[in-house]
Amino acid sequence: MRFDVMRTPGVEARRGRLTTTHGIVETPAFMPVATHGAVKGVSPWLLEELGATIVLSNAYHLAQRPGVELLQALGGVHGLLSWKGPILTDSGGYQLFSLAALLRVDDDGVEYRSHVDGRRGRFTPENAVEVQEAMGVDIAMCLDECIAADAPPARVEEALRRTTAWAARCAAARRRPETALFGIVQGGFDPALRARSAGEVAAVGFDGHALGGLCVGEPPEQTRDIAAATVTHLPAERPRYVMGVGTPNDLLTFVSMGYDLFDCVLPTRNARNGMLFTREGKLTIRNARHAGDPRPVDEACACPTCRRFSRGALRHLMMTGEMLGAQLASLHNLYFYLHLMREIRAALEEGTFPERARAAAGAWA
Amino acid sequence: MRFDVMRTPGVEARRGRLTTTHGIVETPAFMPVATHGAVKGVSPWLLEELGATIVLSNAYHLAQRPGVELLQALGGVHGLLSWKGPILTDSGGYQLFSLAALLRVDDDGVEYRSHVDGRRGRFTPENAVEVQEAMGVDIAMCLDECIAADAPPARVEEALRRTTAWAARCAAARRRPETALFGIVQGGFDPALRARSAGEVAAVGFDGHALGGLCVGEPPEQTRDIAAATVTHLPAERPRYVMGVGTPNDLLTFVSMGYDLFDCVLPTRNARNGMLFTREGKLTIRNARHAGDPRPVDEACACPTCRRFSRGALRHLMMTGEMLGAQLASLHNLYFYLHLMREIRAALEEGTFPERARAAAGAWA
Repeated sequence: MRFDVMRTPGVEARRGRLTTTHGIVETPAFMPVATHGAVKGVSPWLLEELGATIVLSNAYHLAQRPGVELLQALGGVHGLLSWKGPILTDSGGYQLFSLAALLRVDDDGVEYRSHVDGRRGRFTPENAVEVQEAMGVDIAMCLDECIAADAPPARVEEALRRTTAWAARCAAARRRPETALFGIVQGGFDPALRARSAGEVAAVGFDGHALGGLCVGEPPEQTRDIAAATVTHLPAERPRYVMGVGTPNDLLTFVSMGYDLFDCVLPTRNARNGMLFTREGKLTIRNARHAGDPRPVDEACACPTCRRFSRGALRHLMMTGEMLGAQLASLHNLYFYLHLMREIRAALEEGTFPERARAAAGAWA
Repeated sequence: MRFDVMRTPGVEARRGRLTTTHGIVETPAFMPVATHGAVKGVSPWLLEELGATIVLSNAYHLAQRPGVELLQALGGVHGLLSWKGPILTDSGGYQLFSLAALLRVDDDGVEYRSHVDGRRGRFTPENAVEVQEAMGVDIAMCLDECIAADAPPARVEEALRRTTAWAARCAAARRRPETALFGIVQGGFDPALRARSAGEVAAVGFDGHALGGLCVGEPPEQTRDIAAATVTHLPAERPRYVMGVGTPNDLLTFVSMGYDLFDCVLPTRNARNGMLFTREGKLTIRNARHAGDPRPVDEACACPTCRRFSRGALRHLMMTGEMLGAQLASLHNLYFYLHLMREIRAALEEGTFPERARAAAGAWA
């Protein structure tokens, strides 16, 4: 994997280009989330039309269903998703902890009970890398230990220590050069511990580095403070990835700090609940005031939904529970995110960041 | 509305062309069903890509939600569906009877309690036509009285008499020349009553004629027998429409009798349940044997799903409950139906009906 990064003196935000086995990702980039093998409600040809260049999936979930062997028979994650471009998988560390599927963690790895069929399984740094390489992804993530936002200091430090040790074992377990590997930084909400984790993980030598363990219930300012405090400890010549964020404003903020990659379920999940992103702010499509409104969700939006459907029609589809309503809303929100990233990249190229990007984000900036 | 019909001597099946306010429908044609304002899970741009030329919706349902006034603010049914081509609405007679929303039927009309909000409403032949014209559809259907398959002879005759009287009142209520009006034939499962109903309804003078009150629980042979016995009583120079059928084989059978238009929820409903139409017969995608199968659902199929997704991937999407699974399956099944109709039309033009069409239907013929 190759990362070319174009910097502007005095500006932390960077315009980059990530060259992976399955193609190029212009950064900063947002990765639509296909946890179980699909971006919810959005076909791959529409993802292409919306301008997505990289998709995120989840190794833990795919290892449960359909399983690694079946996945290989179907052409790996690329075959399953029918996605020809780059794919990044999270190892599933976060899912193991958040699905309460966790039975036991020790220095060797994680013992879990599958949330699908109840079978016991074991994730170690070694098999986390092995599974992701077998799935044929472009970027794999290390196994890390995730802890709650309110974990006591000793627990935070134990997870940090373990995450570093696992990072080294993940790196040693690599066999497939076509799959890049990113390290994950932990350390809770203590800037000193985050700096230590970043230093230790970076010293192992990865293709990129990610901030893990954020957005676990902490206030947004704390997320930003930790991201700001950690970024200088992450090698500038490698991509930096904030996992699981965020709002359009979060993306602007983290880009301005020097982060390059993002993923979040927010655009698709909110869409299914009828919350749409527009430059004027959020639009709750179920509100009665939209019932007879012939205007599109966002008059300046060029997404397939806004080109053909009125607010009134979309509201009707949501109110009658038509699947198409969730599909159209998901298209719109993903387009909003992907368009914002295009505007961010254009602004960085022109030297007009963040002003131009803020205009695209509108009320969200 | 204009109907040009090309007949081949000695062949009942006909190749036709229906010219409506919003465009041309080559017949025989299958109409995808958008009861509540959407073909379930299928966007209008995909309907266009699949080759649909006319879509069916339901005046009763749309009158409940979003209601006629809001519908008009949104550009009628065409605006709601974002569908530029012809639209036919059923009046909703069948729905009033099948949703058990019915409170009382008398010679004047139908009193119902809305299945959406419990409000009382009244459907008469006059307002059924008025509502459909206000919705701006290309083809409206008369209000008819639907009865159960096992209704006693006196009840069948009463419904027949009422349906004829309502047909005349519907015809007299027309105000908008852009909306064509089809009469509906009732008469239960008595060929003599069907012939009488057809004669009476045709004598009123409609743009087309439909067989109603079929597929209400009777055995398939009985549906076919009634359709065969009635067709010669329906004017040959006007389109003939069998409402609510059917399997691919049903379509072949009714086309061979001289029917021109069909609608059915079967392709989309079965798709959501994981049942796929292929030339080899039905394919139950959830079966374990498809889990690792890299072949498409139908190797000779050119639909968007078969061009990109394997049976294994589609099974995985259905097993994990991903909305995309239902979407992709619906696309495939609708394509199967619309492709079959294209093959039927081509065979009629070539003089190779039904052989060529049977090949397209495969195991269904």
